[in-house]
Amino acid sequence: MTKQERAVRTRRSLIRSAAQAFELHGYAQAKLADISARAGVSPGALHFHFESKAAVARTVETTAGVSLRRAAWLAQPPDTNALQRLTNASHALGELLRTDVVARAGFRLNCEAVVGGALNLRQEWRGCVEQLLAEAAAEGLLNTRRASRTDVAATIVAATTGLEVLGRRDPEWLSRRTLTGLWRAVLPSLATPEALAGLDPGGTGIRSTRREAEEGALNAELEKTGVAPT
Amino acid sequence: MTKQERAVRTRRSLIRSAAQAFELHGYAQAKLADISARAGVSPGALHFHFESKAAVARTVETTAGVSLRRAAWLAQPPDTNALQRLTNASHALGELLRTDVVARAGFRLNCEAVVGGALNLRQEWRGCVEQLLAEAAAEGLLNTRRASRTDVAATIVAATTGLEVLGRRDPEWLSRRTLTGLWRAVLPSLATPEALAGLDPGGTGIRSTRREAEEGALNAELEKTGVAPT
Repeated sequence: MTKQERAVRTRRSLIRSAAQAFELHGYAQAKLADISARAGVSPGALHFHFESKAAVARTVETTAGVSLRRAAWLAQPPDTNALQRLTNASHALGELLRTDVVARAGFRLNCEAVVGGALNLRQEWRGCVEQLLAEAAAEGLLNTRRASRTDVAATIVAATTGLEVLGRRDPEWLSRRTLTGLWRAVLPSLATPEALAGLDPGGTGIRSTRREAEEGALNAELEKTGVAPT
Repeated sequence: MTKQERAVRTRRSLIRSAAQAFELHGYAQAKLADISARAGVSPGALHFHFESKAAVARTVETTAGVSLRRAAWLAQPPDTNALQRLTNASHALGELLRTDVVARAGFRLNCEAVVGGALNLRQEWRGCVEQLLAEAAAEGLLNTRRASRTDVAATIVAATTGLEVLGRRDPEWLSRRTLTGLWRAVLPSLATPEALAGLDPGGTGIRSTRREAEEGALNAELEKTGVAPT
């Protein structure tokens, strides 16, 4: 293994163990010594990669952001309609938050605005929901006789935010089962009968996207810092 | 004013200023000296009523619990159907969280499990949603052709939880407008067409219930501690 490869591996492992420490103890209580020990490296190696706890936290957040964006993106194949893409994207995000500690810890740090910065993942998700509903409207899929597009967007943002928050204590809230139930409950109010017939509230074709998104995020983060895999 | 009346007034004012301090600085950073100063009393007077910061926080939580229960209860006149009562209850809770600092701070302390204890307000709300949906089913109001009652209950709990969390940064999420939009988006999926026609997503007859619930909660808390208004 070259020196470069070892640096990549160490940085990756530090990001993951920082995420574990933040999730377990919270940002304020997490100790750098614990993070380096979890990653199996010396405190000096941690300081080579990150100048402070805030710097590690920011990297966990940006890595989570990249993972979540990629997962949402990969869940939207171009041949599916906008409502199915929205459903798929929510399933991809739920799965990532359920299974990837870096995505989960980064998302929470970001929601709690622990280390500041311009990244706002909840806002990004809201933008994504609004964009896909606008596309769904353009595709003639929406039935806005009773509820406006604004009502529907706010409801989806609120419900998915609620699932994320409730899922912190009980991962069942982020399960495919619960998310599928959410879409079964919401889609009939917002889709035309014709569109509804073709939609799968359980999501389509998103089985293997998670690992890709996760790997991709770590590589993207590493490229940015110059400690990239070759 | 009798000594008894002064004690009631002081305790009430301490509960309110503690809630303000917890909301402003968070539980960990809130200072007892600041709480007594805000209430316009000496630190000794605070210690006469509460033995510790945790004791004040627990009282803020239980007071919030009483307020929220009363508000939800008062919003459910017996001559309305179960779906309208559920809609009304959510509006009453939204209004209370938006306008009453004790309800808001107590709810957050409880969600974050800051001082421990058996009270679980999110769980109570979930129970209330499930109970009212069971009553709605018994009244023949539900259309569960697409979404099961479990789906619908989880969706309503998730969406209202999301509104509370998002409302911490932006009170618009807890406005009557947003909540009305939520019900416009959700009711068509869960109510029969006949039931839907008679439902008001904006809530009915809940204009003056808040002050009653708030006053009631403080009085109930004071009665319990023996420092009750006569």
